[in-house]
Amino acid sequence: MSLDNSWFTEAYTQAGSAFSLKIKAKVAEVKTPYQFIEMYETTDWGYLMVIDGCTMVSSRDNFLYHEMISHPVLFTHDKPRDVLIIGGGDCGTLLEVLRHPTVQHATQVDIDEQVTRMSEKYFPELCVSNSDPRADLRFDDGIKWLKDAKPGSYDVIIVDSTDPVGPAEGLFNEAFFRTCHRALRDGGILVQQSESPLLHVELIKAMHNAMRNAGFSNTHTYDFPQPIYPSGWWSATMAGKGRDLKRFREADSRNKHFTTKYYSYPKHLAAIDGVPLLTAALR
Amino acid sequence: MSLDNSWFTEAYTQAGSAFSLKIKAKVAEVKTPYQFIEMYETTDWGYLMVIDGCTMVSSRDNFLYHEMISHPVLFTHDKPRDVLIIGGGDCGTLLEVLRHPTVQHATQVDIDEQVTRMSEKYFPELCVSNSDPRADLRFDDGIKWLKDAKPGSYDVIIVDSTDPVGPAEGLFNEAFFRTCHRALRDGGILVQQSESPLLHVELIKAMHNAMRNAGFSNTHTYDFPQPIYPSGWWSATMAGKGRDLKRFREADSRNKHFTTKYYSYPKHLAAIDGVPLLTAALR
Repeated sequence: MSLDNSWFTEAYTQAGSAFSLKIKAKVAEVKTPYQFIEMYETTDWGYLMVIDGCTMVSSRDNFLYHEMISHPVLFTHDKPRDVLIIGGGDCGTLLEVLRHPTVQHATQVDIDEQVTRMSEKYFPELCVSNSDPRADLRFDDGIKWLKDAKPGSYDVIIVDSTDPVGPAEGLFNEAFFRTCHRALRDGGILVQQSESPLLHVELIKAMHNAMRNAGFSNTHTYDFPQPIYPSGWWSATMAGKGRDLKRFREADSRNKHFTTKYYSYPKHLAAIDGVPLLTAALR
Repeated sequence: MSLDNSWFTEAYTQAGSAFSLKIKAKVAEVKTPYQFIEMYETTDWGYLMVIDGCTMVSSRDNFLYHEMISHPVLFTHDKPRDVLIIGGGDCGTLLEVLRHPTVQHATQVDIDEQVTRMSEKYFPELCVSNSDPRADLRFDDGIKWLKDAKPGSYDVIIVDSTDPVGPAEGLFNEAFFRTCHRALRDGGILVQQSESPLLHVELIKAMHNAMRNAGFSNTHTYDFPQPIYPSGWWSATMAGKGRDLKRFREADSRNKHFTTKYYSYPKHLAAIDGVPLLTAALR
């Protein structure tokens, strides 16, 4: 069947796939200096934020991404106190980060304030921790922020960015990873969304190489479902500054004091093992 | 953007989502007494089999489903010798089943021979075990086959069916599960594809209830990615006849003598834990 204009479609033409959600209405749009943001009300998935034509966040499935970009890295670090989020303007990652009681400061640096303003209005459930005294929301250029950061000032850096085109293009190369490495304390960890394990094997390989060349001693990619992103199967890649990424605070993960919809101790075990398909490709 | 007619789209209107693959050409179609089967050549996903408008199998991503419908159940059983596959006409499940050296007979009962004939032509890589002396391919009604089966004749039954509408509708109710229970030996296990953990929570709950009412002592649902199915996130549900589904042959899973692209020992650990979202819903 073909879809009429009551659907929003993101066609991922590089891999010949497309995903669509049926919409009731477009409820907002704003052209910012950085990108074009649209908000739709869907029939079954709540609200949908679209940036430059790409689906970013839906009410229904964002928990998968937000839990899986945060909890594995935070339970891998011994005691994450200072966390930096690059991007993440919808504030869903910040929310998950602040569930961890060791965290003393979580700084979110998104270049585009309008993403956060839109999220406050349409995804208020993701913004409930924005007023936490540990949260520091900055609207600034993440690349510049990291260049200016004092060496060894963060325990964990989470790069929660759009795809490696447009404003996020500079977040996927060795020069950027070098600034992350410098800004991390010894034993610190960078984690970054790294596209689809089915469709982007070459990108993931290149990220590993660039991270290693930038000085990271350990790199690892893990997978999770994410329906609204191309292929519905997504990944994140961790890079450790002298830290083994295969060990984590197992007891704390098992006995965490917050509920999750997807993340669990066994999902973490599966994550640190990775995907056999990728392990073979990265060998 | 809207998609022109160079895309094949399955719109899952019940949940307001759709998935599309870009096609080069339709290469075959056949109307059988049971269903309408189409085969497309896609630009990036190899061949795509469509039954009654629903995407069934693609060359690129079928390994996820086929590995995850087979290996968890086969490593959970102590010594699976006699395996029955209901549906599964593409033969990808049969292939994975026959990788297990304990299996002495694997009977595949698909109502529609044309699915297998199409698969032999377009997915020959899934049919390489069809001539294995342990394989028995039957083209018959699976419901009738189970009614006629001698009690206690199988160790494992895998229901690898289409969605619970049309020819597969009768495979999702208590009467059917009762015939499966009867056909299994003590300690035997049924596993059945059970749709999306995001979109079909009510169906999954109903399956658990029907399986318990049919006599199964243990039921459990686990998840895995499956890009071409609605939401890209899929599930299977196991039902044990006096068998704990949380224990499996861990050493055999760790040391398996075949390679997989997705299934692994840690993925099995995550599978037997399940999805927190579903665990809460089924409580």
